[in-house]
Amino acid sequence: MTAKKTGKLKVIPLGGLNEIGKNMTVFEYEDEAIIVDCGVAFPEDDMLGIDLVIPDFSYCHKIKSKIKGIALTHGHEDHIGSLPYFLKEINTPIFGTRLTIGLVESKLKEHNLINDVKSHCVNAGETVHLGKHFKVEFIHTNHSIADAAALAIKTPVGTVIHSGDFKVDYTPIDGEMIDLQRFAQLGKEGVLLFMCESTNVEIPGYTMSEKSVGKIFEQIFDDTPDSRIMVATFSSNIHRIQQIMNSAYKHNRKVAVIGRSMSNVVKTAIELGYLNPPPNTLVDISETKRYEDHRVVIIMTGSQGETMSALSRIASGDHKLIETKPGDKIVISASPIPGNEKAVYKLINDLLKKGTDVIYEGLMDVHVSGHAKQEEIKLLHSLVKPKFFVPVHGEFKMLRTHAKLAEELGINKKNVFVLGLGDVLELDKSHAKITGSVPTGQIFVDGLGVGDVGNIVIRDRRHLSQDGLMIVVVAMERETGRVITGPDIISRGFVYVRESESLMDEARAVVRDTLDMCESRHINEWTYIKSLIKDTLKDYIWKKTKRSPMILPIIMDICNY
Amino acid sequence: MTAKKTGKLKVIPLGGLNEIGKNMTVFEYEDEAIIVDCGVAFPEDDMLGIDLVIPDFSYCHKIKSKIKGIALTHGHEDHIGSLPYFLKEINTPIFGTRLTIGLVESKLKEHNLINDVKSHCVNAGETVHLGKHFKVEFIHTNHSIADAAALAIKTPVGTVIHSGDFKVDYTPIDGEMIDLQRFAQLGKEGVLLFMCESTNVEIPGYTMSEKSVGKIFEQIFDDTPDSRIMVATFSSNIHRIQQIMNSAYKHNRKVAVIGRSMSNVVKTAIELGYLNPPPNTLVDISETKRYEDHRVVIIMTGSQGETMSALSRIASGDHKLIETKPGDKIVISASPIPGNEKAVYKLINDLLKKGTDVIYEGLMDVHVSGHAKQEEIKLLHSLVKPKFFVPVHGEFKMLRTHAKLAEELGINKKNVFVLGLGDVLELDKSHAKITGSVPTGQIFVDGLGVGDVGNIVIRDRRHLSQDGLMIVVVAMERETGRVITGPDIISRGFVYVRESESLMDEARAVVRDTLDMCESRHINEWTYIKSLIKDTLKDYIWKKTKRSPMILPIIMDICNY
Repeated sequence: MTAKKTGKLKVIPLGGLNEIGKNMTVFEYEDEAIIVDCGVAFPEDDMLGIDLVIPDFSYCHKIKSKIKGIALTHGHEDHIGSLPYFLKEINTPIFGTRLTIGLVESKLKEHNLINDVKSHCVNAGETVHLGKHFKVEFIHTNHSIADAAALAIKTPVGTVIHSGDFKVDYTPIDGEMIDLQRFAQLGKEGVLLFMCESTNVEIPGYTMSEKSVGKIFEQIFDDTPDSRIMVATFSSNIHRIQQIMNSAYKHNRKVAVIGRSMSNVVKTAIELGYLNPPPNTLVDISETKRYEDHRVVIIMTGSQGETMSALSRIASGDHKLIETKPGDKIVISASPIPGNEKAVYKLINDLLKKGTDVIYEGLMDVHVSGHAKQEEIKLLHSLVKPKFFVPVHGEFKMLRTHAKLAEELGINKKNVFVLGLGDVLELDKSHAKITGSVPTGQIFVDGLGVGDVGNIVIRDRRHLSQDGLMIVVVAMERETGRVITGPDIISRGFVYVRESESLMDEARAVVRDTLDMCESRHINEWTYIKSLIKDTLKDYIWKKTKRSPMILPIIMDICNY
Repeated sequence: MTAKKTGKLKVIPLGGLNEIGKNMTVFEYEDEAIIVDCGVAFPEDDMLGIDLVIPDFSYCHKIKSKIKGIALTHGHEDHIGSLPYFLKEINTPIFGTRLTIGLVESKLKEHNLINDVKSHCVNAGETVHLGKHFKVEFIHTNHSIADAAALAIKTPVGTVIHSGDFKVDYTPIDGEMIDLQRFAQLGKEGVLLFMCESTNVEIPGYTMSEKSVGKIFEQIFDDTPDSRIMVATFSSNIHRIQQIMNSAYKHNRKVAVIGRSMSNVVKTAIELGYLNPPPNTLVDISETKRYEDHRVVIIMTGSQGETMSALSRIASGDHKLIETKPGDKIVISASPIPGNEKAVYKLINDLLKKGTDVIYEGLMDVHVSGHAKQEEIKLLHSLVKPKFFVPVHGEFKMLRTHAKLAEELGINKKNVFVLGLGDVLELDKSHAKITGSVPTGQIFVDGLGVGDVGNIVIRDRRHLSQDGLMIVVVAMERETGRVITGPDIISRGFVYVRESESLMDEARAVVRDTLDMCESRHINEWTYIKSLIKDTLKDYIWKKTKRSPMILPIIMDICNY
């Protein structure tokens, strides 16, 4: 890489899936580059067996020597989750607010990276210098996790504002409102490029304050004088947890948290002072047995119906510590994330069938979003008043809606860019243009493997998941093509073998005929024999069942016997 | 079965999945029985490879000689889709309104059953006698398919009203409002049991009239003077299709329908007079090429993002007849059914990326539900005023909400029964009680197979879908336990083999060590050897990758060589 004096800023969204500018964005100016966020995406339904999706880092490797650091907007997985994978490959300092860095560090510990990585806490309002070209100012915002920040990135061509994830909460739990004044001040000074999140851009109106949920919890606690209360929510929603603890304290209840991620986050948040359990309120789950039902609140994960979560295990009756009983009040304090609806409804049905009283969104307003809706987005646009605009953090349809909204707010249509993953937007003080694209893509993480499962493997899993498989094994003398034993047919995930014996017998006969034909015609090219077996058996099975199991012919060579 | 003189009516919901009283309900009185509806359920996400779920008919077989007929409320798949499977096993006459029977007959033709089954058209308002104990009156209702009916079932113990699926549309497209007067009259005469659908019982307010969608279509057509218009909707929503055709006619456009199910339903509905295309409006898709874009409307299926549907193929660019171009206006006139959200959003994103203009729910009110919301449900309750109430057609959480609603409307709590699949509710003139349950369950249809795929097969498919499989093949002399060839390891859906050669080599070494150990200890019990191979390899792979592929050891006996 030669560092040409181009005088241009490059902005390049990278990321695991389609939501542009969510997981990772590269900012590059001549011989220097910085990265904003480094998150994971969660696998789509058809990415069978995949745990996580991380961005393809190959472009970062290409500009490795330029990278001055990673600035993090907040501590959600889709913004920090890829850090361990990235830092193992490219070690660079990271910058974030205190809670964000706290959450990153507990993640780095798990990956045994804590001693190798330089992390820096930045207070909201502070500016860090990354290299000689980039100055990154952290601006306080509100979101469903504490200590979220927008970034004002000052570059030689002008100021870029990246909103991060935000909402406008006039009455936040920690008293710290989004710093609208600073957005306004920067806007007055002149903003070259605004990158703004789009999650709720399709929804009119305002997102309610987190405090409104606290009022509902007060009401639920008032209405529940006798029963045990359990609440499922996101582990990172520290302000929600704070409010539940406050209500519990007021109603003379003890609070226990269960589940690995819930316990981890609560521990970190308490250590750093973001979560302040009222006196004598937090107890270990084992202690709750000593208290009567009306003195107990249990907070847990599982609001998305995730199969392995605490609440799902409780619903299916196989949680090792907690058993529900009729009368328990269970609050699901979250909305189903698109794609999780059926799992959440199933969870609710299962809990209701156990006789518990379940409160979920739709019955009561037990959740508010952490993302700005249309009016809040308009407000930020009006304060920032950028020259150029790039909608980020959303599916294509949301980015398009956001682009239109920006145009309605007066920005010139040709100054709005809906970028695709890997698109390179080049800016100088007065122009912006998509000039090309860099390689990008999805890397699958499955267990310990990073990138060893790709599209072919997934395609096979998909095939196997639909109709199962049939294995045909034959032992053969290579020279003569004479069949020594077999063919044997083994199937899995195809049919109940016991009830389909005749089908399997006939299948074996079909293969045997093929082998006989090969022997009589002296065909001993194994690849050819295998493909013959595959095709004949496939046709036969399709004719009989209208199914297409994967067919795997295996020929064992026993010429050395 | 002896037909005891019990003087009791039994009501038994059967059905493929959890939605009680949706797919099928049995009514039994002494030596006679009738069935209401016979529908399919669509597989849950974890029922891999399954096409349809039909009810377990074993209880029907048990009372086969009692069955006098099947009464159908309307022609949706979840109410008629299991008929071919049922009628193949138990041939009994079917009764329904004209469109319902029309749709059933085209289904019976496909299954070559048309000549064997006796079907009867019943007009709304008419009563049919089934046996000596059951008189079934068909009452006109409104729904998202024409010719829907509620049933008033007169039995020796009293009248049962089954709502079917309904909404209250004061301005229906065909002019035929739900027969509220008849419900009221029956209510006045006295209703023993009301069974009412619960789909939208969680939603406050009223469902809008289908006519409101027509107004939006008018607006869309007005706003689209130049472009081609495509509309995706449910094929059975004949009134929606009628309104689109009317708008097209008014705007001097021709209409073509594409897709097998859309074409079938449109054909049947025209033949029976339920759909009346305006003069010179309907053309074949091939003819649309002769018209300019602003003269063309294409109606198709695919509003749920189904992969094989017309619209998905158009979005992915592999529909054989239609290619989108920038500027095309595409209207998705439906809501995503829970579970389909992500597929629908992906479809919208894909279409937008092609430069088309997509209108979907959220942007404009291009869809209304066919199901009653709270106020309409309350209205029907108030007209019917039953002694006993059973909420039907909904997930457990909806049935519970509906039960509470009924209690608020004044029905005695102990007269409300939330039934589970197979529960037997026994009623006489003044009492009702759950007295037991009959076998019920899900039968999976996969291709041509009915019931040959069960939980074990599905479990295997699920396992295969998560981590793929490893096959270990060894040829062995049974007597001596001597290994002749192998072990060979073949994997699918596990890892990229090329990039994981060393892992596979080591795996082979692990198996070879196990085999050596067996040989040296003279272990020649094959089941034991197989389980040793499985366990050792499983442990090794988990340690190395944190994955659990299915491991299939296959030993070939070559003692006869």
